[in-house]
Amino acid sequence: MNRPIRAGTDRDEARARILEVAEEHFRRVGHHKTSVADIALELGMSPANVYRFFPSRDAINESICGRLMSEVAEIALAIARTNAPAKEKLGRLLIAIHQHTKMTLVKERYMHDLIVAATRENWAIIRVHIDRMVTIVEMIIREGVEAGEFAVDDAAEAARAVKSAFVPFFHPILIEHCVQHGDDMEADLRDLIRFILKALRNSQ
Amino acid sequence: MNRPIRAGTDRDEARARILEVAEEHFRRVGHHKTSVADIALELGMSPANVYRFFPSRDAINESICGRLMSEVAEIALAIARTNAPAKEKLGRLLIAIHQHTKMTLVKERYMHDLIVAATRENWAIIRVHIDRMVTIVEMIIREGVEAGEFAVDDAAEAARAVKSAFVPFFHPILIEHCVQHGDDMEADLRDLIRFILKALRNSQ
Repeated sequence: MNRPIRAGTDRDEARARILEVAEEHFRRVGHHKTSVADIALELGMSPANVYRFFPSRDAINESICGRLMSEVAEIALAIARTNAPAKEKLGRLLIAIHQHTKMTLVKERYMHDLIVAATRENWAIIRVHIDRMVTIVEMIIREGVEAGEFAVDDAAEAARAVKSAFVPFFHPILIEHCVQHGDDMEADLRDLIRFILKALRNSQ
Repeated sequence: MNRPIRAGTDRDEARARILEVAEEHFRRVGHHKTSVADIALELGMSPANVYRFFPSRDAINESICGRLMSEVAEIALAIARTNAPAKEKLGRLLIAIHQHTKMTLVKERYMHDLIVAATRENWAIIRVHIDRMVTIVEMIIREGVEAGEFAVDDAAEAARAVKSAFVPFFHPILIEHCVQHGDDMEADLRDLIRFILKALRNSQ
């Protein structure tokens, strides 16, 4: 498969093509075994040319990781935009993110490994993604307060607490550990959601 | 330092001496660099003799790890036994365990590494320890219910939810990650404790 980037292709399109090829390789052989030379070869360009579009190999990794994180955020947003009561949306969101994290590990091991690397090495993209997810949760909490479902003084603080409490169910290293040992976390997650909803309902 | 185990020393005493020497070595050079031969040499016995008291090297590791876990449980129990209101005890307990975990990492790196190995490899001692900690939390929650501070239908379920929510603040791998990146988690923990107390106060 050789897909040259033609002269005159604009910058955004070239970047998109590079990421498309990189992602294919990452999914098939993993990011550790994909070199810039592999990506360049498939695009019919020199490695130096790839570096015209991405300052470093790490920048490609971050971009692919960013795409994965966007998929997660889209799942959360799709739930946040439905018309259900806030308490249902929050529960569904947490379960959906947990299941997605687990499925990535089980079905897309190499992508999971990329997210683990990003988490261990504290890539900026992970922090930004988590902040975005906390914002989505905050929006749902605000909606619940407006609808009289929740009684919360500081929705941002409550959203951060929900995030902390939810860590065991979305942290890629912890999920890996539980799956390895055959733990089913979903019953614990449902208990935690009930607990979270109680905290949000209480105005004291 | 040669501390032979005399003939006639009883079994429990021999085990205690072996563990004492093992723990000293673990603290000084780490469990990976401590061999059964090192321990035996210092006790003036043969390695085969050490194996009379412990079925395997892993059994020594588990025992040392169990001592560390007992220290943690003792901190929790000391707080649980005070006369303060349940909500204060619960908050103090969670903060004390978080700080102890962090201090072990900072001041006793080799012991932290042993706990990380135990966590990664899912040693039975870790599961038992966590169950014990959940029981201590459950007892405090029951006290709070009796005193009218908390309104909880199922204290055991609530205690498990508190444990889940508290994971980011005591899991050795996550603590290591945060300390490496200079994150101060204590403000987040205080927010989480407020959130937990709200959940426990709500009877809905």
